[in-house]
Amino acid sequence: MAAITTLVINCTLKASPATSNTEALARNLTEALEAQGIPCEMLRAADYHIPPGVSSDEGEGDQWPDIRQKILHSRILILASPTWLGRPSSLAQRVLERMDAMLAETDDAGRPVAYNRVAGVVVTGNEDGAHHVISELSGALIDIGYTMPGQCWTYWNRGPGPGDDYLSSDAGHEWSERTARQAAHNIAGVARALESTPIPPASG
Amino acid sequence: MAAITTLVINCTLKASPATSNTEALARNLTEALEAQGIPCEMLRAADYHIPPGVSSDEGEGDQWPDIRQKILHSRILILASPTWLGRPSSLAQRVLERMDAMLAETDDAGRPVAYNRVAGVVVTGNEDGAHHVISELSGALIDIGYTMPGQCWTYWNRGPGPGDDYLSSDAGHEWSERTARQAAHNIAGVARALESTPIPPASG
Amino acid sequence: MAAITTLVINCTLKASPATSNTEALARNLTEALEAQGIPCEMLRAADYHIPPGVSSDEGEGDQWPDIRQKILHSRILILASPTWLGRPSSLAQRVLERMDAMLAETDDAGRPVAYNRVAGVVVTGNEDGAHHVISELSGALIDIGYTMPGQCWTYWNRGPGPGDDYLSSDAGHEWSERTARQAAHNIAGVARALESTPIPPASG
Amino acid sequence: MAAITTLVINCTLKASPATSNTEALARNLTEALEAQGIPCEMLRAADYHIPPGVSSDEGEGDQWPDIRQKILHSRILILASPTWLGRPSSLAQRVLERMDAMLAETDDAGRPVAYNRVAGVVVTGNEDGAHHVISELSGALIDIGYTMPGQCWTYWNRGPGPGDDYLSSDAGHEWSERTARQAAHNIAGVARALESTPIPPASG
Repeated sequence: MAAITTLVINCTLKASPATSNTEALARNLTEALEAQGIPCEMLRAADYHIPPGVSSDEGEGDQWPDIRQKILHSRILILASPTWLGRPSSLAQRVLERMDAMLAETDDAGRPVAYNRVAGVVVTGNEDGAHHVISELSGALIDIGYTMPGQCWTYWNRGPGPGDDYLSSDAGHEWSERTARQAAHNIAGVARALESTPIPPASG
Repeated sequence: MAAITTLVINCTLKASPATSNTEALARNLTEALEAQGIPCEMLRAADYHIPPGVSSDEGEGDQWPDIRQKILHSRILILASPTWLGRPSSLAQRVLERMDAMLAETDDAGRPVAYNRVAGVVVTGNEDGAHHVISELSGALIDIGYTMPGQCWTYWNRGPGPGDDYLSSDAGHEWSERTARQAAHNIAGVARALESTPIPPASG
Repeated sequence: MAAITTLVINCTLKASPATSNTEALARNLTEALEAQGIPCEMLRAADYHIPPGVSSDEGEGDQWPDIRQKILHSRILILASPTWLGRPSSLAQRVLERMDAMLAETDDAGRPVAYNRVAGVVVTGNEDGAHHVISELSGALIDIGYTMPGQCWTYWNRGPGPGDDYLSSDAGHEWSERTARQAAHNIAGVARALESTPIPPASG
Repeated sequence: MAAITTLVINCTLKASPATSNTEALARNLTEALEAQGIPCEMLRAADYHIPPGVSSDEGEGDQWPDIRQKILHSRILILASPTWLGRPSSLAQRVLERMDAMLAETDDAGRPVAYNRVAGVVVTGNEDGAHHVISELSGALIDIGYTMPGQCWTYWNRGPGPGDDYLSSDAGHEWSERTARQAAHNIAGVARALESTPIPPASG
């Protein structure tokens, strides 16, 4: 099983090097994980060519296999997404669709590869929608086999109506950043618990 | 078919006469409808005894039949809900469950009774969640047979994290109230279009 | 304003000419619309290069402007989506993100261009999820300005657990196809009502 | 902290002794937990008077405090819900609203009382909607502080369209019951991991 390291997949619609509000908020969570001795890597889905599909390799030019290897090498996965029309970004759903194949990929004990792995969520938006994005991503990650710790997420937005972005406003940063640190603490705690005492193989 | 009048069901958890933020925001919508000559009545689900169930009359003590009569006498229905844990209130879901029976109740032409009726949504919260509440209530109302006009809703909340209520903050009122007036305009427009040119009975 | 014609955007993950269950179910709806004299065009999002973004033109190689023109020329829009992890496909969300720009594009009367247009939804899946996909797509389309008629959708899936596809099973076809015809009737009815009696411009 | 015992709150709309499909499916999960030596108690929310509100005690006649004590005495909580209009039952949302107060109730180390507790979900329906119900309940439970193990749920329904109930059909039982056993295994595993290695108090 993978070591306790973290992969953050930032599902912003913007390729590097454009500024990403979602990346900026996610940095609070990765800094708190690193302060606990957990290495973190962050990538943007928009920097990769990820064709639509539900297999682990869609062939010529598909860069998903690179991301998939990083996912498999990390015990912790953070999905970070902006909010568009109140919903997770198309790239967040694309990542989940490609991860769908992991349901049928098993470890040595015959279990889905995501078992005993832990996930969290980061959401930003220029409008309301974060709780829903968290529920959508959590529901899908649990389906794939990830364990979601209590309060394993943070978010930032300002309602009502469309308005500021995380980096264009000072409002609410204290709450979102404190919540990120708490999420990191909970994610690290559950990852360590499952490393010490993994869910055992089913007896039959 | 019912005249163009409006029933607002406020699904706050608080019975009268407790102050309701949701009622306060919904007043902006009803005032705009009344300014167009459309009478409005507002009630609180919490003031009625509405036992759980999916029939139009759950028997002794059930006050749903009173609300149901008001729904049937109004061409326009507004569901107004607070946001709890990012979701519609339990009373909003209770109202929808009781309305579920309307799917099997038909007009003279054999169509579900909600056909040619129009609905809208009002959401308040002390935290993020409004877009999701709107989608949940809209999805259910469309299922029952209501037509949902474009931008037939307004909402108010302030993120990130739990905080002020609509009546305890001045922030964002201009946007939420302007959006309420626009929603009223759209709802009235579609109600009039369907009064002039109803969806005809299916030819077979 | 556009004539009463229909554009179906099939958001299957599979490019042509692969068989699409979603297309097959959507054909029931387009056939019923055509029987009412309403011309229909269907395209697959997967056949176009639609880069991530929230503008109407993301530049060099972006084929979204072609789809956008078709949307603007059709009074009726049907979003058809498969179900992956219980949610709309990444291409459905991509289409909505690109349509987000339509919120700021106005007609001669200063209204969002989607006003007085009508939408519907078709969903297939090899597992449960259709009601949620319908709510997600309906919520977003209402946000953009489309009017959603009562019961403007159909779906097909078989639970529990993953299993057959629409084209690999005979079960439930009668219900899904009858529901498609009813949806076509309702969509055509509301489109005609809004052609005869459009939502007027706001008086100020 | 509570011992590893399980409380199942069945959120069917039907009070005892009416037959509950949701209870019948949930029994597969409790039997599998009991086979692992984990005692289980099941109750129906509909058998209690639970007034609307978001406090732990709404006063005279409120029976929520009885349920709350059972929740606090059990390390594992299973929310079991029927599907109405594709969504969790009004009683499931009522339970979550009342649990909302737990966010502000802390253990000796100053953490929300739900920390280091584990939850799961059971869903039945006479129509599509289970994945959404699972995401809604999971999102809310994570918010409150519960850890949700990978694949901690089971469901049963048959689409498309309304139809059979779990107990009125033999179809799909094998999948739903096997999935219940797998969920029990995962829930027990994560509960034991967090008993052995709890999330520690935050260092400051």
